[in-house]
Amino acid sequence: MSNIVDQSTLFKKRHSLAHVLLMAIKHNFPHSLPTIGPVTDTGFYYDIDFVEGVKPTLEDLPKLEKTMREILKRNLSFKVETITPGVAEGLFKLNPFKLELIDGIKTKGQDVTLYYTGEDFFDLCEGPHVDSTKEISNDSFKLSHLAGAYWRGDETKPMLTRIYGLAFETKAELDAYITQQEEAKKRDHRIIGAQLKLFTTSNLVGAGLPLLQPNGMIIRKEIEDYLWSLHSKKGYSRVWTPHLTKKDLYEKSGHLAQYSENLFHVMGATSKEDFCVKPMNCPHHMQIFADNQFSYRDMPVRYFEPATVYRDEKSGQLGGLLRVRAITQDDGHLFCTQEQIKEEVSTIVSIIKEFYTTMGMMDGYWVSWSVRGDDKSKYLGTDEVWDIAESSLEEAAKLNGLNYKRVEGEAAFYGPKLDFMFKDAIGREWQLATIQCDFNLPERFDLHFINNEGKKERPVVIHRAISGSLERFMGVMIEHFAGNFPLWLSPNQITILPISDAHHEHAKTVYEALDGANIRMKLDNTREGLGKKIRNTREMKTPYWAVIGDAEVTNGTITLEHRTAGKIGEMKISELVDKLSEEIKNKK
Amino acid sequence: MSNIVDQSTLFKKRHSLAHVLLMAIKHNFPHSLPTIGPVTDTGFYYDIDFVEGVKPTLEDLPKLEKTMREILKRNLSFKVETITPGVAEGLFKLNPFKLELIDGIKTKGQDVTLYYTGEDFFDLCEGPHVDSTKEISNDSFKLSHLAGAYWRGDETKPMLTRIYGLAFETKAELDAYITQQEEAKKRDHRIIGAQLKLFTTSNLVGAGLPLLQPNGMIIRKEIEDYLWSLHSKKGYSRVWTPHLTKKDLYEKSGHLAQYSENLFHVMGATSKEDFCVKPMNCPHHMQIFADNQFSYRDMPVRYFEPATVYRDEKSGQLGGLLRVRAITQDDGHLFCTQEQIKEEVSTIVSIIKEFYTTMGMMDGYWVSWSVRGDDKSKYLGTDEVWDIAESSLEEAAKLNGLNYKRVEGEAAFYGPKLDFMFKDAIGREWQLATIQCDFNLPERFDLHFINNEGKKERPVVIHRAISGSLERFMGVMIEHFAGNFPLWLSPNQITILPISDAHHEHAKTVYEALDGANIRMKLDNTREGLGKKIRNTREMKTPYWAVIGDAEVTNGTITLEHRTAGKIGEMKISELVDKLSEEIKNKK
Repeated sequence: MSNIVDQSTLFKKRHSLAHVLLMAIKHNFPHSLPTIGPVTDTGFYYDIDFVEGVKPTLEDLPKLEKTMREILKRNLSFKVETITPGVAEGLFKLNPFKLELIDGIKTKGQDVTLYYTGEDFFDLCEGPHVDSTKEISNDSFKLSHLAGAYWRGDETKPMLTRIYGLAFETKAELDAYITQQEEAKKRDHRIIGAQLKLFTTSNLVGAGLPLLQPNGMIIRKEIEDYLWSLHSKKGYSRVWTPHLTKKDLYEKSGHLAQYSENLFHVMGATSKEDFCVKPMNCPHHMQIFADNQFSYRDMPVRYFEPATVYRDEKSGQLGGLLRVRAITQDDGHLFCTQEQIKEEVSTIVSIIKEFYTTMGMMDGYWVSWSVRGDDKSKYLGTDEVWDIAESSLEEAAKLNGLNYKRVEGEAAFYGPKLDFMFKDAIGREWQLATIQCDFNLPERFDLHFINNEGKKERPVVIHRAISGSLERFMGVMIEHFAGNFPLWLSPNQITILPISDAHHEHAKTVYEALDGANIRMKLDNTREGLGKKIRNTREMKTPYWAVIGDAEVTNGTITLEHRTAGKIGEMKISELVDKLSEEIKNKK
Repeated sequence: MSNIVDQSTLFKKRHSLAHVLLMAIKHNFPHSLPTIGPVTDTGFYYDIDFVEGVKPTLEDLPKLEKTMREILKRNLSFKVETITPGVAEGLFKLNPFKLELIDGIKTKGQDVTLYYTGEDFFDLCEGPHVDSTKEISNDSFKLSHLAGAYWRGDETKPMLTRIYGLAFETKAELDAYITQQEEAKKRDHRIIGAQLKLFTTSNLVGAGLPLLQPNGMIIRKEIEDYLWSLHSKKGYSRVWTPHLTKKDLYEKSGHLAQYSENLFHVMGATSKEDFCVKPMNCPHHMQIFADNQFSYRDMPVRYFEPATVYRDEKSGQLGGLLRVRAITQDDGHLFCTQEQIKEEVSTIVSIIKEFYTTMGMMDGYWVSWSVRGDDKSKYLGTDEVWDIAESSLEEAAKLNGLNYKRVEGEAAFYGPKLDFMFKDAIGREWQLATIQCDFNLPERFDLHFINNEGKKERPVVIHRAISGSLERFMGVMIEHFAGNFPLWLSPNQITILPISDAHHEHAKTVYEALDGANIRMKLDNTREGLGKKIRNTREMKTPYWAVIGDAEVTNGTITLEHRTAGKIGEMKISELVDKLSEEIKNKK
């Protein structure tokens, strides 16, 4: 357990519910052995070693919940008692898991704390807890599911049964969370991704290494091109750096130790030279800067590179686009003087605002202005430069009217940050964009420019990403839009639906007009009935379709329908092209 | 030595000159030991173990050349003699290098051949040679340079001195080659690349892994965008695949053994899983195809991906952009029926023609129509499908009026090819584009589509690359244009040169007009004299500059000059914008 203990009421309630769950388990499954029962972001769980053949199933959860409610009604009080490890070993002598935990506490030379719930039940626990079960409302929690979990997360150790509970302050919050989860399940980007043929995975390629189908690549390229258009207007230059590098680069940057667990080590079959796959682009961009002799006239220098970096994780933790090993960052580094920080950060903030407004995610966002904590010795760089950087970030936030809050101790060791939290359509929060000052890399790479006094001066580096990673962002967007992408992002923007063979020629004219305007469309000239054709079009979440029958042929028109707005009406081909082109251009 | 011996006259002359060089060396450096003296693409060399302190320098080459000419004049005849390895060992008993070669021949159970030049001189040699030195003209060869070379290319073995000679059929050809080499030296892409800040290399990153500076990335992105625009018009879709993959993919494709020497092996620090960096994209694209259930209505399916693949080589062999470990192929794979091969190949040929016409490289190109050799057992697939594919390639070549020739035995084992050879501005030939039929991968990945009879049918795969690799192509382009890129490729397209401070305001108006038209430009508002400003602009090989003085301010104009055409004249700002925009659009 962590040494920093959450003292919030919600934490105490969740933690206490874990104990109440255990009481209910002991009541219903008296021969089971408890192990640990911590708090989660949405509730709690308890890992139990059940007797083989007497394990609960999903059907048993309501029964356990009922027992928990009965226990809560008894208004039992939580009381702590401190004992020696020796005494504790006596109390838990039949439970090897608890004995292992006690042994760990003993090794540290600490005493053990027990928490009593009522008079008869106690558990080994650090606390904190509510004072009495009456503080916990009977309808603000729910046992959600169960799963297997190895003791201490170690595959070589016994498999336990983990029972998960959800718990919130109120029933309303619990219900809202459950509704959100149900909605999230419908929007699962892995399911929509397969249905709309956006991406695929392959056992031959490996976990966390998705391959983009043409439809997915259209979305990704639109996002990437849009990001680049926002940057090119603001004086950024594109650079390119290779995916392999000698480790020397990361030794110099100081990243090697930090990233060692996530590194992919590489060995050349012929050269027998050691490399790694880059886990980040920063040190490469430092090398590109260092290859120039810049003067104050050239500053700031701004590099942009949507580059794929690779970070290793265990296969079991990977899935879809949200947890991947291949991470394409919309990465950028800019090099500026201390005086320029404010304006540069302000420019980046304006890019972020424009981008997320387009994506419909500016509602309910907030920004963490992450500054130093009390222990200044943990941070690199002088007080003076920290003051400039922290206040520059805040001024830029103010200037752009950001909803920000100061979060102490959340700065990186190398500098302060602005971290952007955005809510998707069903209210889930995602940390996406970031702006980070860096006083470390310019030192390590001995970067400088010639200032207006002809002397060498150290630039500040600002790291920034707008979408964060194109894979994760695309995953978020699929769920945010539930696959109903706005027109400019839709792989297929419109389907042309001639009702019968007699309408094919006119359909072809429409096809060519749309093609000439670079609108992405399909022509369905199969012999299916119109109803079936529309259902197929809807299934692929196509924004528009243009129906062509006798009237449209006669009038030289089409009748436009929209996936949510329904029938829009009959219009000339040129009107259709103008309408769609305008909507695409405006990214509506 | 290879078993296939070139019997051409030029080969014989070059080979004979190597012997004559050795005779000259023995005359001038009697205590030196000869090792091997093979033919090269442009002449010959001989590796000699000279006595320490009595080694020739560059200054000695004319003396050796003079001796060679005297030897040639003696009209010595070349004669072969076959002897046993035992006899050969006696003849060469003082030369450990030749003894090692003889030992190699002995192990194979073969006899040794000696070649006599005149009566007194002989060398261990497989031949062939000219009949007499009188066949070799005295002025069609030249000793060019010398270098160190390890015995048998092995760093653990003695360092020898390699003396290089150039040799052609005629003096004119020799002179042309020397002129081309001198011109090539001036165009060296590594020197121009540094001068124009196109790319850089870093010891911390490693050999063969160049990093692109903003200027280089502009060129690369223009080329890449142009390639994509050519493909998107022809029904190609973009896909994206990760750089890492499990080796299982290449086991299935059959590439693992073939690429084993060039493979970068990867180990995940946390997962402890084995991967490799992809040396090619084909198997990935097979996976993307296989994830769909295509019908004959969907065929052909065309994927395009400019993707970086990695192939290991020894550091010593790498340099600049022409020999790299990071190779960004403008890769594409299309899947079609046998009947569609001709039309699809024809489309690719048309893309190639358009692309290389724009690049000014269609003069003197030729195409190798690479078909099967006599031994049909070396190739995969039925005679029938080979006949269709080979004739489809030829028909597409004819249809597009290509200058092609049939080259037997140059097909890949998996199918026939069209390989495109282009000449650069100084006449050097580069193999760049390729179109390859493949009957192997569809089998290995069990690919199919549903044909119009509702049955599974195997598609043909066509691999194709237009530029080959963006790194190598960019290296070739830098040397082809000698850094004087056409306007659309120029990192900076025009520099605005106000003569004095009084002209800055008007210069700013020009700047904004050009910026609004997305023209890449610089404004030089330093206080240097105009002459110096123009010299700086020329040094960066900028195509245009716009001079602004009193007259231009008064008239609301600029005076345009061009790096080769000189002064173009005074014009309105709108005229300038139109002129440049038109030239950029037309890629002139």
